[in-house]
Amino acid sequence: MVQEQIRDIAHIGHVELLTPKPQESLHFFKEILGMEVVKEQGQSVYLRAWGDYQLYSLILTESREAGLGHLAMRTFSPMALERRAQAIEKSGYGKGWTDGDYGQGKTYQFTDPDGHRMEIFYDMDKYVAPDHLKPALKNQPQKIAARGVSIRQLDHVNLLTSNVTADTEFMMNQVGLMLSEKFVLDSGVLGGSWMRITNKSYEVAYTSDKTGSKGRLHHTTFNVESREMILRAADIFLDNGVFIEFAPSKHAANQTFFIYVYEPGGNRIELCAGGYMIYAPDWEPIVWTEADRAKGQAWGVPTVATFHTYGTPVVKMN
Amino acid sequence: MVQEQIRDIAHIGHVELLTPKPQESLHFFKEILGMEVVKEQGQSVYLRAWGDYQLYSLILTESREAGLGHLAMRTFSPMALERRAQAIEKSGYGKGWTDGDYGQGKTYQFTDPDGHRMEIFYDMDKYVAPDHLKPALKNQPQKIAARGVSIRQLDHVNLLTSNVTADTEFMMNQVGLMLSEKFVLDSGVLGGSWMRITNKSYEVAYTSDKTGSKGRLHHTTFNVESREMILRAADIFLDNGVFIEFAPSKHAANQTFFIYVYEPGGNRIELCAGGYMIYAPDWEPIVWTEADRAKGQAWGVPTVATFHTYGTPVVKMN
Amino acid sequence: MVQEQIRDIAHIGHVELLTPKPQESLHFFKEILGMEVVKEQGQSVYLRAWGDYQLYSLILTESREAGLGHLAMRTFSPMALERRAQAIEKSGYGKGWTDGDYGQGKTYQFTDPDGHRMEIFYDMDKYVAPDHLKPALKNQPQKIAARGVSIRQLDHVNLLTSNVTADTEFMMNQVGLMLSEKFVLDSGVLGGSWMRITNKSYEVAYTSDKTGSKGRLHHTTFNVESREMILRAADIFLDNGVFIEFAPSKHAANQTFFIYVYEPGGNRIELCAGGYMIYAPDWEPIVWTEADRAKGQAWGVPTVATFHTYGTPVVKMN
Amino acid sequence: MVQEQIRDIAHIGHVELLTPKPQESLHFFKEILGMEVVKEQGQSVYLRAWGDYQLYSLILTESREAGLGHLAMRTFSPMALERRAQAIEKSGYGKGWTDGDYGQGKTYQFTDPDGHRMEIFYDMDKYVAPDHLKPALKNQPQKIAARGVSIRQLDHVNLLTSNVTADTEFMMNQVGLMLSEKFVLDSGVLGGSWMRITNKSYEVAYTSDKTGSKGRLHHTTFNVESREMILRAADIFLDNGVFIEFAPSKHAANQTFFIYVYEPGGNRIELCAGGYMIYAPDWEPIVWTEADRAKGQAWGVPTVATFHTYGTPVVKMN
Repeated sequence: MVQEQIRDIAHIGHVELLTPKPQESLHFFKEILGMEVVKEQGQSVYLRAWGDYQLYSLILTESREAGLGHLAMRTFSPMALERRAQAIEKSGYGKGWTDGDYGQGKTYQFTDPDGHRMEIFYDMDKYVAPDHLKPALKNQPQKIAARGVSIRQLDHVNLLTSNVTADTEFMMNQVGLMLSEKFVLDSGVLGGSWMRITNKSYEVAYTSDKTGSKGRLHHTTFNVESREMILRAADIFLDNGVFIEFAPSKHAANQTFFIYVYEPGGNRIELCAGGYMIYAPDWEPIVWTEADRAKGQAWGVPTVATFHTYGTPVVKMN
Repeated sequence: MVQEQIRDIAHIGHVELLTPKPQESLHFFKEILGMEVVKEQGQSVYLRAWGDYQLYSLILTESREAGLGHLAMRTFSPMALERRAQAIEKSGYGKGWTDGDYGQGKTYQFTDPDGHRMEIFYDMDKYVAPDHLKPALKNQPQKIAARGVSIRQLDHVNLLTSNVTADTEFMMNQVGLMLSEKFVLDSGVLGGSWMRITNKSYEVAYTSDKTGSKGRLHHTTFNVESREMILRAADIFLDNGVFIEFAPSKHAANQTFFIYVYEPGGNRIELCAGGYMIYAPDWEPIVWTEADRAKGQAWGVPTVATFHTYGTPVVKMN
Repeated sequence: MVQEQIRDIAHIGHVELLTPKPQESLHFFKEILGMEVVKEQGQSVYLRAWGDYQLYSLILTESREAGLGHLAMRTFSPMALERRAQAIEKSGYGKGWTDGDYGQGKTYQFTDPDGHRMEIFYDMDKYVAPDHLKPALKNQPQKIAARGVSIRQLDHVNLLTSNVTADTEFMMNQVGLMLSEKFVLDSGVLGGSWMRITNKSYEVAYTSDKTGSKGRLHHTTFNVESREMILRAADIFLDNGVFIEFAPSKHAANQTFFIYVYEPGGNRIELCAGGYMIYAPDWEPIVWTEADRAKGQAWGVPTVATFHTYGTPVVKMN
Repeated sequence: MVQEQIRDIAHIGHVELLTPKPQESLHFFKEILGMEVVKEQGQSVYLRAWGDYQLYSLILTESREAGLGHLAMRTFSPMALERRAQAIEKSGYGKGWTDGDYGQGKTYQFTDPDGHRMEIFYDMDKYVAPDHLKPALKNQPQKIAARGVSIRQLDHVNLLTSNVTADTEFMMNQVGLMLSEKFVLDSGVLGGSWMRITNKSYEVAYTSDKTGSKGRLHHTTFNVESREMILRAADIFLDNGVFIEFAPSKHAANQTFFIYVYEPGGNRIELCAGGYMIYAPDWEPIVWTEADRAKGQAWGVPTVATFHTYGTPVVKMN
């Protein structure tokens, strides 16, 4: 029985990252990644990448520990927002309505089963580039940032969880995401999932947290225009003393070309390019087995060991 | 008043191109572009690019003249197919149901106001790569074709029309496409439109036919993985005697990086890479004026003169 | 009869450009091209690109008109410097010895027959990167400049001349450059020449000046790491209001991928990537005819009209 | 005291590789790498890459074991050939003159101290592309091979040796190569050396053989046009079942972007792009220490363990 496509969520709106080193983190996102500051308010700084159509895609908030503040998603319409809020409310994970953050309208807050804070909204002020950032082409939100690695856009978020199945089902059934790929352990337990909101093969991913912790962040990802820009980013990170945890290579899952670094606050940041789009209305999720994953990334590169344990907040392994 | 997002069409399924030189055209698509033949039937050959998830994305059909055979789009579900068929039926442009082409299920045929033949369908046999084309990664439909310019996927179609407004409104209102960008003449008349089905900024475009003809094809486009592959394609076309009508450059509209050539049958073929994605649920179409267009393409390159008149079938200008 | 290879000149050392708008020009080279200032002295600023091993590769000097100040070349040894000075002295184009510019040792000055000022030297202070520009890798002269278009190195110079033959023969016979490619008019007159000092196919080129002027500069070129960086440069130039005279494309001669812009002072600046290397000891210069040149650049793009007349100092055409 | 530049050797001419699986190896070089066969003679096949100006750059010879047949270098002139032959003769490593291989003139054969067979020559028949391989541009030796990974040119050779110092000194003093970079162990012993013939930073490299064997080959390298083509090569190797020993990354030494695979006969093949050129006449060799090398490749990727032991002929480690 074919089901009708439900599309209430339009895309990831922004991510809030917590950092115990606000000045160093801000320098990283602004000077090394090339983001622009659009607002400073309280303990938070609101930033955007040159290709984000949104008012901002990152909120950097001073905090005792690094980690995810919250993940915000935009709906297709006010009605879609209401529908999703009701569905989530019923699930018991709802936290209620707020007036929304800077530039943002009515917002419904909730958590996923593992406790990651999330919110959905529809209304958002449009970004209008100030004169010094006006682009030459009408179909570009902002002048290209020719600074540092020049990230283009917020791309996706990967969350560590104590229960991949519970979070994945919640995101699919209550929030309305679609499953693109999954990693199934030989025991039958779900070890990871990649879900999409748009035609990109993923915007939200869950990975099993080997430390048994809850609510942690694995990484936040921004995309750049080409794989060449990822290679250039590696050179720039190297010359600027940024810790490269996983050097440029290609993922088997989702096929994105990547590089992983830690921002000064400790949060893992990925830059990506490429990957594939899903157009099929009857897409059947790709299933990766332990045997598949033992082959490493696409070209056989072993996944770095810290990938299975490091996340923010940082927890000590016994 | 915000309207609910209607998404009945999932993506472009395939394009049928007519060619008076079937052998030469087949050689071009197979050896120079790197496509694979999946079926030969009657006067037609069915081909696919390595990144197409579809069974095929191109039907090459022998004909007295070059031009568009038809454009096929896939719906999200059987119900969506019914809904669209009914809407089109009402418009008076419907032609009725057929059992579908090779591998394809129940199909509804119609034309746009200008007479371009189109069809929509939902059911399609899944592509299963034969042994010699099995890919290494599970999330790739076929082994990468390391032959010629190695096109990845069918990308979009651009149609010449005697009435951009009529066709654009039909595609938006009856078929359900979304307007991304448009070119408005100083007289207020619509000179061109770019519409999207997915998050890519366009899959179907209309351009005013300066010859006053009806139902002609401007070009069919396949994408490659990177701008570097477009530059390499130019070298390969040059060394293989393929006519390059418009050398690699970047479009202002939609910002895709392109190259245009003529296949031996006379149809204009574009290869593209890059461009931008539209995530905003409240996207306001970009409006290009005559003054904007007078600046040429993104970097100021003047559009080649033949762009405004050449199409297939070829017509003589007075 | 095979001749022994004479290699007295090692490479282009630096170029001095004159500018009537010193502040705007400095901003262009520093912020848009990404160069670093190593010295300010009198009316001159000395700059370097991150990949230049030299102390500096560009001297920007305030002047009433734009144009070439001088072109400096480094010899392989002090003996090579003496040999070349003697050969040039004999030709009658010598101007004599000086103590050399900033950081530079004993220098012999001369002009080519058309009057372009040149000099050769061997001794030059080594560049030592200051702490904030220290690179991570020992085999890199300076931290990569992640600012603007990030040019890597001085690449070559193209001079306009009233007599291509005279200048080419002088540079080959007295200075010791090697001819890689040439453009011969149907009349038999030499219309252009490309000469090499290293394995790159050219470092100095001459083009016939259609205005009949003497001693003008056609352009100065810096290279970037990849063709992708040229495309990115075009986007950055566009967004920063830099005049793009010739958008990215590929040269037929020497096959370099290029973009041409004007710096604020009026001098034409090219960025390039790619091209080919000459390893053959018995290389026979490539000969381009008028018929060849009529085909345009490599992919058929017509050369911009201003290419045949614009140079610095700017002269009015009648 | 500055020494005069001696440049008797012009470049690497060709490499002979031995293979116990001639058919499979030929398929690899022809279909996967995209080389062209120019001659078959006895147990050998002579091949060329599209960008090689030479008649051929690879001789593939059937043999009981894989390994290096010989390395051939071309001199700048017949006089240079005589000079080098005399210098080598004196060293005691000379083997004498032959009439030369296919298309090649008078040749002087010798070995390096570790026993790798080498030869130098000046005369070589020019390559004339047959009609089906005629390029569009006069300054290109052959039509671009749009097949497989499309290698462009022979780039360099890396030899395993029981005595890096002896071989390096021999190549510098008798053959006339220049030292670009070296790896010095804490004990003061030379662990590796990279020498150049042209402005590319290396054409011949030596690495210490941990197995204590003599005369083995570490790898032979071909270059491609861009880093993007290396990434594409990885995808093509993956889909064609070619063993990837070291996935794409960037070397610290010489900064080339690389991928290493084994051809069916067992020889390690590297593809590279990028790296840097040496223009300085007073270049001081870069010195890498054990501490430097412990950091892995440029971006911190650890060197694969097999790199220190695997070579051809294959020897068993105890």
